[in-house]
Amino acid sequence: MPKRTRKNRQHITGTGFKNLQNHLGYLEPLKAEQVEQIHQNSMKILRDAGIKVLSPPLRQHLKSLGCLVDGENFIVRTDADFIMEHIAKAPKQFTLTPRQTRHRLHIGGNHINFGMVSGPPNASDRKRGRRPSTYQDFQDLMRLAQSLNAIHFLGNQAVATTDLPVHTRHLDCMFSALTLTDKITACMSVGRERVEDAVNMVALARGVTLDELAQTPGAMTNINVNSPRVLDAEMSDGALAMAELGQMVIVTPFTLLGAMAPVSLPAALTQQNAEALFTLATIQSWRAGAPVVYGGFTSNVDMRSGAPAFGTPENTLANLAGGQLCRYYGLPYRSSGCSASNAVDAQAAYETQMSLWGALYGGANLVYHAAGWMEGGLVASYEKTMLDGDMLDGFAKMLSAIDFAPDEFALDAISEVEAGGHFFGHPHTLERYKTAFFTPMLSDWQNFENWQASGSLDAYTRAEKCWQETLENFTPPPMEQAIMESLQSYIAKRIEEIGDRPL
Amino acid sequence: MPKRTRKNRQHITGTGFKNLQNHLGYLEPLKAEQVEQIHQNSMKILRDAGIKVLSPPLRQHLKSLGCLVDGENFIVRTDADFIMEHIAKAPKQFTLTPRQTRHRLHIGGNHINFGMVSGPPNASDRKRGRRPSTYQDFQDLMRLAQSLNAIHFLGNQAVATTDLPVHTRHLDCMFSALTLTDKITACMSVGRERVEDAVNMVALARGVTLDELAQTPGAMTNINVNSPRVLDAEMSDGALAMAELGQMVIVTPFTLLGAMAPVSLPAALTQQNAEALFTLATIQSWRAGAPVVYGGFTSNVDMRSGAPAFGTPENTLANLAGGQLCRYYGLPYRSSGCSASNAVDAQAAYETQMSLWGALYGGANLVYHAAGWMEGGLVASYEKTMLDGDMLDGFAKMLSAIDFAPDEFALDAISEVEAGGHFFGHPHTLERYKTAFFTPMLSDWQNFENWQASGSLDAYTRAEKCWQETLENFTPPPMEQAIMESLQSYIAKRIEEIGDRPL
Repeated sequence: MPKRTRKNRQHITGTGFKNLQNHLGYLEPLKAEQVEQIHQNSMKILRDAGIKVLSPPLRQHLKSLGCLVDGENFIVRTDADFIMEHIAKAPKQFTLTPRQTRHRLHIGGNHINFGMVSGPPNASDRKRGRRPSTYQDFQDLMRLAQSLNAIHFLGNQAVATTDLPVHTRHLDCMFSALTLTDKITACMSVGRERVEDAVNMVALARGVTLDELAQTPGAMTNINVNSPRVLDAEMSDGALAMAELGQMVIVTPFTLLGAMAPVSLPAALTQQNAEALFTLATIQSWRAGAPVVYGGFTSNVDMRSGAPAFGTPENTLANLAGGQLCRYYGLPYRSSGCSASNAVDAQAAYETQMSLWGALYGGANLVYHAAGWMEGGLVASYEKTMLDGDMLDGFAKMLSAIDFAPDEFALDAISEVEAGGHFFGHPHTLERYKTAFFTPMLSDWQNFENWQASGSLDAYTRAEKCWQETLENFTPPPMEQAIMESLQSYIAKRIEEIGDRPL
Repeated sequence: MPKRTRKNRQHITGTGFKNLQNHLGYLEPLKAEQVEQIHQNSMKILRDAGIKVLSPPLRQHLKSLGCLVDGENFIVRTDADFIMEHIAKAPKQFTLTPRQTRHRLHIGGNHINFGMVSGPPNASDRKRGRRPSTYQDFQDLMRLAQSLNAIHFLGNQAVATTDLPVHTRHLDCMFSALTLTDKITACMSVGRERVEDAVNMVALARGVTLDELAQTPGAMTNINVNSPRVLDAEMSDGALAMAELGQMVIVTPFTLLGAMAPVSLPAALTQQNAEALFTLATIQSWRAGAPVVYGGFTSNVDMRSGAPAFGTPENTLANLAGGQLCRYYGLPYRSSGCSASNAVDAQAAYETQMSLWGALYGGANLVYHAAGWMEGGLVASYEKTMLDGDMLDGFAKMLSAIDFAPDEFALDAISEVEAGGHFFGHPHTLERYKTAFFTPMLSDWQNFENWQASGSLDAYTRAEKCWQETLENFTPPPMEQAIMESLQSYIAKRIEEIGDRPL
């Protein structure tokens, strides 16, 4: 087995996991009165246009609370009082606890958590190219996510497991996520039964009862609103089941300017806000106090082709503005790091950076897709996962407070090194140089001649070596035999129960 | 001649030049008391360790003002009163006017100006590779800089013109910069005579006298402090000549943590601050009120190889913190967009992004090296120039205020598009879609199949086509024949005067 290199080790020991906080404040593109305008106009949309709610029991529930329900086309209309009354019940801050308590997450306030790519139907890597993703890809991406210190949580599914039976693949995926990683993992919210399976398995992995899990939540999911203005039944069923079980739900309208939302940023933000608030208020009206998060996913499409674009100026502004709306309502915030690039190149990096800076200084508590996301969500890339992991580690270092202990001013060293000299050999340097700076995993800082002599490897090529090495060296986090067996029995039982029945 | 494509045109018409402002405020990693500590410790360094001043007349001048001058090793020691008294004379804001007044720059306050790569001894492009740079490269980079709307000014020299005679190449470069562009251009501050030539030529290009130019400055330069603590004679001579002529001087200590400064960020920032303030105060003591700018260039070296690194967390924090120091003193701020990458790849892009975000939200008024800088300053890349130009255009869009006119809320459109429908064909979209979003020059948002069908071109390859097309279509900005001739005669006269004499 190849040796783990010194450079990689610090990023990939699994012991360098750090909870991150933003100490620098926010960048806020909206004036206070513009936030207020977006709020007022969102309320108008919910009162006049309403939201199409596809779940009959949910419509019934909302009707019982006094909402106007149009039984023919399933439109539910609500007023501001309903929304604000229920939104106020959502907790401002909470924690999520995985089986490794060192990997506990803080959600809300100025806390920042980076999540793995989730959702793509394809995987790609430099050697095997782009292909429909499989269970093997899912497992490998779990291994990379576990290995990368900068990854705090796993999204709904790193990639689709297109080679597994559709009715039971959620069990396999949850099993892999819970055994190959010990970080917080999201489940897919597609109907009540899948969510219940996921939460049961999270409880088994933690060795706690469902009641205990409800007290210290450890499962999460994300649901989208099918913008414009449709709340899907499978998604809302799953979300309500999560809420009943006391687990976290993110609600993210999918508001691409020009396609699912108008081409104007104020309009798209208003629609995002209306759709998110309606769904979050609905969840709170179902189970007051359930941990929820407001998700923003507003970007624009390329108006020539209709293809989604990310890391654009509009996307960055929307990521920043979304945080202002969340702070207005006192809700935790989810945003994303995204790119539309087809190649792991400069475009992939600068788009991802643009959206990440928007997410970070927008105040996102959860940054979805922060590693590995390509092609506007159609591909999870092994190489991009590692490059993004390196970038995120850089952000983590940047987010740490600067050490201002008196000795860090090095006034003696500055006096002692002669004018025009250098600090390489000074004791102040020698005492600190090994750990003074962020050491990247993949950035290559050699001079051109040395870089050329070592093969002229660009970032994409270096990233390939890095994920291969990481997988070769991977050891799953330990799990008690009894817990492993309880998960295996649960799955065996459920596969038998489900049979060929569609979920 | 190939046609300029629709995508490129808006970035490269030369009419889209925009003055930019930061309306979102600053990200500030230093607490108020830490800024104060840096200030106090900088003053200690200047009082105790001092600065080595290599220019005899400047030492004499400082001695006459009461500074302690050690005649043996040229160290000048100053107290806080001297520094603060003279720093207070520097203007907080001013403008720079080039021959095209539409390209006037605002320096200070929340204004942001992006500058072209400057300094590298090498050029590179995808076809011809990396080689010592020539006058042809210099001219081509001027053409690209003129073409890119996002470039506001030209730095000291885009590349070294290693094929031109050393004593007169400054004349050729200034001639190219003034005829191939009509933007603000810096000159090299290497001795008094070169600076005087540059300022004379700027005055000729503007068609004004030196007195008139002093009233509305249009020339600029950057000098470095040779950290630690050495002020070179050639550089300070040039800077003082600029000040006498009323033209702008940036003072930028070159404080790489671990090499020319201690490995600790508080120490490096303190040293940067001491060196910058000493030099700026000196310039103000020479000519009170001369337009000056505080430059920050603090990054770290790779402690394994000693090679400089950029776009690191430390570099980003230093860019942010530098702005806090400038605001403390009421001085305009220069920072940079940098990368150490050897390839135009993901690393080049994310390092540049990291440093750019640090510069922007640090409050930099001038962002040097914002397009084309590679390998820590050893190479100017044609492809990276175009990619960075595209990124900067994205920043320019992001920095514009969001249009909050009532119609931008599109409440009618949101009501009229049915739930689950789309906005592609709605009149609100059709009225706006052509100009609603930022349209990039180089980012490719096609879906994978179309991207593949069009040749699977990555960002690097697309950038090559883009600069080639831009050069093929280049037309220099018009210049009156009389002005052109006055520049040509000036150069002919000066070449004769200079002869083989070293400057």
